[in-house]
Amino acid sequence: MDIKQKIEKANEETAQRMIQGEPVLVDIAPAGEVIPGLQDRMILHSGPPIEWARMCGAQRGAILGIALYEGWANTVEGAQALLEEGDILLGPNHHHQAVGPMARTISKSAPVWVVENKAFGNRAFCRQVEGRQQFGEYSQEPLEGLRRWRDIWAPTLRTALAKIGGLDLKPIMIQALQMGDELHNRHSAASSLFANKMAFAIAQADMPKDAVLPTLGYITNHNLIFLGLAMAAGKAISDPAHGVEYSTVVTAMARNGAEFGIRVSGLGDEWFTAPAPSVDGLYLPGYSSEDAGFDMGDSAITETVGWGAFVIGGAPGILSLVGGTPEQALAYSREMKKITVATHPTYLMPALGFMGASVGIDIRKVVQTNIAPIIDTAIAHKDPGYPIIGASLVRPPMECFKQALIAFGRKYNVN
Amino acid sequence: MDIKQKIEKANEETAQRMIQGEPVLVDIAPAGEVIPGLQDRMILHSGPPIEWARMCGAQRGAILGIALYEGWANTVEGAQALLEEGDILLGPNHHHQAVGPMARTISKSAPVWVVENKAFGNRAFCRQVEGRQQFGEYSQEPLEGLRRWRDIWAPTLRTALAKIGGLDLKPIMIQALQMGDELHNRHSAASSLFANKMAFAIAQADMPKDAVLPTLGYITNHNLIFLGLAMAAGKAISDPAHGVEYSTVVTAMARNGAEFGIRVSGLGDEWFTAPAPSVDGLYLPGYSSEDAGFDMGDSAITETVGWGAFVIGGAPGILSLVGGTPEQALAYSREMKKITVATHPTYLMPALGFMGASVGIDIRKVVQTNIAPIIDTAIAHKDPGYPIIGASLVRPPMECFKQALIAFGRKYNVN
Repeated sequence: MDIKQKIEKANEETAQRMIQGEPVLVDIAPAGEVIPGLQDRMILHSGPPIEWARMCGAQRGAILGIALYEGWANTVEGAQALLEEGDILLGPNHHHQAVGPMARTISKSAPVWVVENKAFGNRAFCRQVEGRQQFGEYSQEPLEGLRRWRDIWAPTLRTALAKIGGLDLKPIMIQALQMGDELHNRHSAASSLFANKMAFAIAQADMPKDAVLPTLGYITNHNLIFLGLAMAAGKAISDPAHGVEYSTVVTAMARNGAEFGIRVSGLGDEWFTAPAPSVDGLYLPGYSSEDAGFDMGDSAITETVGWGAFVIGGAPGILSLVGGTPEQALAYSREMKKITVATHPTYLMPALGFMGASVGIDIRKVVQTNIAPIIDTAIAHKDPGYPIIGASLVRPPMECFKQALIAFGRKYNVN
Repeated sequence: MDIKQKIEKANEETAQRMIQGEPVLVDIAPAGEVIPGLQDRMILHSGPPIEWARMCGAQRGAILGIALYEGWANTVEGAQALLEEGDILLGPNHHHQAVGPMARTISKSAPVWVVENKAFGNRAFCRQVEGRQQFGEYSQEPLEGLRRWRDIWAPTLRTALAKIGGLDLKPIMIQALQMGDELHNRHSAASSLFANKMAFAIAQADMPKDAVLPTLGYITNHNLIFLGLAMAAGKAISDPAHGVEYSTVVTAMARNGAEFGIRVSGLGDEWFTAPAPSVDGLYLPGYSSEDAGFDMGDSAITETVGWGAFVIGGAPGILSLVGGTPEQALAYSREMKKITVATHPTYLMPALGFMGASVGIDIRKVVQTNIAPIIDTAIAHKDPGYPIIGASLVRPPMECFKQALIAFGRKYNVN
């Protein structure tokens, strides 16, 4: 078998592992109970490794918020001092089987979605999405939201989930893709279907009204609640596809606000990074491109497994958020066929005649075609202390894929 | 003002009345309590008036089922005898502010959705959708389903609805149209959004578990539950638009399984009928075009107010049910602009660049362009005793519109 055949076979294996993923929500537990290697006074951040000094405004703001939320400091200045002195450990979500949207951070007391890939037995984690602290806002109100999640909403959902013995996420995602979601920034359908399931579970679990009512109020009015679940599902699906020798398929795309990084299945744990691109799209009232930080967050794990902007042709409702026309959206979804190795048999887009999602980004095809993956993202402020300011489509720097291809050539002696 | 100006003004008024409709679910009550003119031992049927002897198989089957369900007879033969002897009164849903999908029937003990159009103060009614008795099946199992609706599900929902003081349906329908529903045969999104609202209401209402659990189980697993609500909403929206002098806009399209009939705003209570078209589409396993009855049901009230196949371009998920391509679906939605008088400002289709739904079918335009309205429908069996057998797209006979235009010319002295 020549090198080309070895690569093709490895890529097919990688994509098949992704296709076979069966993500099931099995728990909603404090991160400290379930995330391997998460220590006390440690905060997990998005993207490739990065130290405090180089972090962007949104990531700093989110980390300051967590230090206050965990009670490690009582003032922003106090938190800042701890971080500058290295008294709080930092590490990437991705190094702990976890992912986080935007500047999303994980610390020990924060309940995370625990998603198990039943086909492979691995687990992945993501915290809930709330649109404020995750973007770097650290005032009292968003932190109070984190506390309500920790003290009321998450424990109630945990009890209800235990009552029904877990929740299969794949049927929800299959349906949601036929209901105009793209499973990255549009989760109106998946969130509604998820709330239906959990409302029934909560009713079965016989809990006190002061737990049930606020929790039902939260989940039935949160049209992005499924984002954290889709991200954990994406990570759970992607991880078993990592580590296939000779594979040129991307298994992670993540940004820390300074750098965009990718990992490749056949290239071990190395991140191939380049400066994060600036983003420009549609802004919420009061903000403009001058306020925008660089591209950030782990949420491109959804595109990594074939969702997000890869299936945006089936989700034109999101264009009111990110801009563009339905025809452009259809073209993006078709374009991704050119840089991927497989088509998913059950994640389908009705608007494209029930065409399946494109799975398995091949770094060779990206470099050869000069087509970078398309990513559907939110926009964070360049300074700490703000909520979401907008949304857009973005592409990773080609440099990441070129670097990875060079490393591949070196490792496998390809010239 | 010449006749043409009078017609244009009247049509604009008619369409505006439809656009201004604000449907709110205000009750779920036994039909006998709320429907004007519904007598004891009376059954309401779909479409224009028709006597027992001329009814099609599905309509006969559904009526036999209701006679058994109400306990007016103990056997099918007994029920048939009552009907042949005229001992059970029959009347069209539309003559009682009501509508029914397919062969859907209403009798006194059946709880109906009560939808009030808050902009005009009128009410409309529709029974729940269950896919079996409404298609003419009269065996024990579907009738038992009607009893559970009457005895458990509907009373529980009624109590919960009273707790929250009614439910505004327009926001649900606006969202559902952005989530791949067309509000006629695809209600995956609207049903899920509705179930979330009602789950929260049920939790607030403090009811016994043996009422709550089966009701939540029913509403969170019924992806067509919103169909009855959309139909009642359509009727509530359409009725105030009826009776505008000089208006050539259609205010009802309904089929009794033998005839297709339309009513026109400026032409009083007359039905303009022609033989119902045969339907052919996609069939469920075990059935073929040889089993199909003629087009039937009141559900085209959804197209009458601009939903259903009029917005099918935004609902490509339904093509797996009715057949066709996404491009054809987009073309149907564009085509309907040619025979209507207005565009809805808030019922939008993302797949068409957020174009609004086409509202107000003008019989003049239908005849001039020779384009009949497109309707997204289910297929019933030609014989009594069967559930749903398929789905398709269908168009009404042009004859209805030509007759109406002739009657218009006669009434208003137009030559």
